[in-house]
Amino acid sequence: MNVVALAGGVGGAKLAAGLSEVVAQNELTVVVNTGDDFDWMGLRICPDLDTVVYALAGLNNPQTGWGVQNDTFHVLDSLRSMGCDTWFRVGDRDLATHLFRTRELQAGISLSEITRAICRMIGIGIKVLPMTDSSVPTIIDTDEGTMPFQDYFVRRKCEPRTRGFTFHGIENATPAPGVLSALECANAIIVCPSNPFVSTGPILAVPGLKPALGASKATVAAVSPIIAGRAVKGPTARMLEDAGVAVCATSVAGLYRDFVDIFVVDVADEMLRPQIESMGLGSRALPILMDTPQSRVALARKLLDTII
Amino acid sequence: MNVVALAGGVGGAKLAAGLSEVVAQNELTVVVNTGDDFDWMGLRICPDLDTVVYALAGLNNPQTGWGVQNDTFHVLDSLRSMGCDTWFRVGDRDLATHLFRTRELQAGISLSEITRAICRMIGIGIKVLPMTDSSVPTIIDTDEGTMPFQDYFVRRKCEPRTRGFTFHGIENATPAPGVLSALECANAIIVCPSNPFVSTGPILAVPGLKPALGASKATVAAVSPIIAGRAVKGPTARMLEDAGVAVCATSVAGLYRDFVDIFVVDVADEMLRPQIESMGLGSRALPILMDTPQSRVALARKLLDTII
Repeated sequence: MNVVALAGGVGGAKLAAGLSEVVAQNELTVVVNTGDDFDWMGLRICPDLDTVVYALAGLNNPQTGWGVQNDTFHVLDSLRSMGCDTWFRVGDRDLATHLFRTRELQAGISLSEITRAICRMIGIGIKVLPMTDSSVPTIIDTDEGTMPFQDYFVRRKCEPRTRGFTFHGIENATPAPGVLSALECANAIIVCPSNPFVSTGPILAVPGLKPALGASKATVAAVSPIIAGRAVKGPTARMLEDAGVAVCATSVAGLYRDFVDIFVVDVADEMLRPQIESMGLGSRALPILMDTPQSRVALARKLLDTII
Repeated sequence: MNVVALAGGVGGAKLAAGLSEVVAQNELTVVVNTGDDFDWMGLRICPDLDTVVYALAGLNNPQTGWGVQNDTFHVLDSLRSMGCDTWFRVGDRDLATHLFRTRELQAGISLSEITRAICRMIGIGIKVLPMTDSSVPTIIDTDEGTMPFQDYFVRRKCEPRTRGFTFHGIENATPAPGVLSALECANAIIVCPSNPFVSTGPILAVPGLKPALGASKATVAAVSPIIAGRAVKGPTARMLEDAGVAVCATSVAGLYRDFVDIFVVDVADEMLRPQIESMGLGSRALPILMDTPQSRVALARKLLDTII
């Protein structure tokens, strides 16, 4: 079995962690969004990669969805006392990851090699790949002007209304080494329940990615990030609203219709299946809310049963 | 009154802190060795500058001589758990300084401007100047080959025998803005009790520094880093031995004879004064051991009484 998960932040990390308990380590590849990556105090931070890696290592903070559990914030507190901007919360344990990554990048090592090293250091056998080794920062066009993703997401708490999304430089980016071959060898590809605009969107915008999904013999299943008309987490609902479509799993299915075989909604959205299937997609209704470790494993198992 | 102190690490920091209690803030300039500066995990660390700044702010750790008192080491512990080298001990509070400095350097700000900003952030009104804005790393020639200063000093705990000292690129360095004018306007210049080879040595090797001492109308006084044939701290005694001279205040006076007016020994070394004066130097014997906050203030006061 070869399973590839396309993952954004929290939702992707949860499902990847669930899959890691159901699939053998060497049979799972997680391809992660890097559009959120940015520089903070001279350090390179890759929030989605870290969220996935920490979740796979069992180090993640389930309360916040980001960072390391029981982390301290001594460096950040010191920076605040020095008058530095501290709206992006970096814990001390987390900072060690960013220091290591930045030093390695400065030495000319690629992000995918560094991510492999971090996984090894942290004791993860699963293959975690950045979608690309290039920097392709997500820029949000809002009613208050354009802004980098973390400015919108963390500093402005997703308050501005969105008008569009640009992944700067994506036209020249290539998939990171291993991404295309993983898709080619996969017999199950899962688009995790992440924001379709800013989490899975950048991954699917990397040149070559969508064609590889189309060419793959694998069944491609996507899990809805919307349950009963509400986003499980983050600004997905608002962004759908700003895009002028209904805040509804069906709208996400519509965004994915070109490359997805099966769209999975929550059991609460069973009634949406005919509408989704009328777009030419297969559909399933499963309990997709991952609010406990047990539920993410159960979802992973049911998904694979459905697909393979 | 205009007082300039030339300072290395711990001894310089103590005397600078003593002077800061005796002299008005705007009358004291501390020029600090930057030969020890190096890169650690991609961050620029300036150990002597930080030791001086922390001491002036009352933040320094009197037990270790370096770092911030009551600091934690969560980031360093995390780096160790990731398998990174952690022989250089960086605390969490201390790390905030390095993060800020590195980000500013990357933005093209000079080390002297950054140091001014750090002093402002940390609440110090005294002017602290790096000896130069250029990078002039101290390289130690040892019986085990050449090595960067921190490798010799921290990693190798000063064990290799020394044969010589190079300040890489010093021939093209210039004094940092403010250094020459401070020396020109000074009526007292104090060479702090620091290692003459690797602490005051690099400062005095910056082109233009020694001529400025010679041209200054100020009395130049140096305080011995050797008391009763022993170094107060660090490898000064071993380095004198390796240089083939006696481990004795007189040897340091000999190294300073070209530019110093008064050489100050400890009261325990009163008997060395005739020998020092025979080199054409003035001399004084004062209680120069700064083992308490009171003693460093007392030394500062007595020094200024002697000089001015």
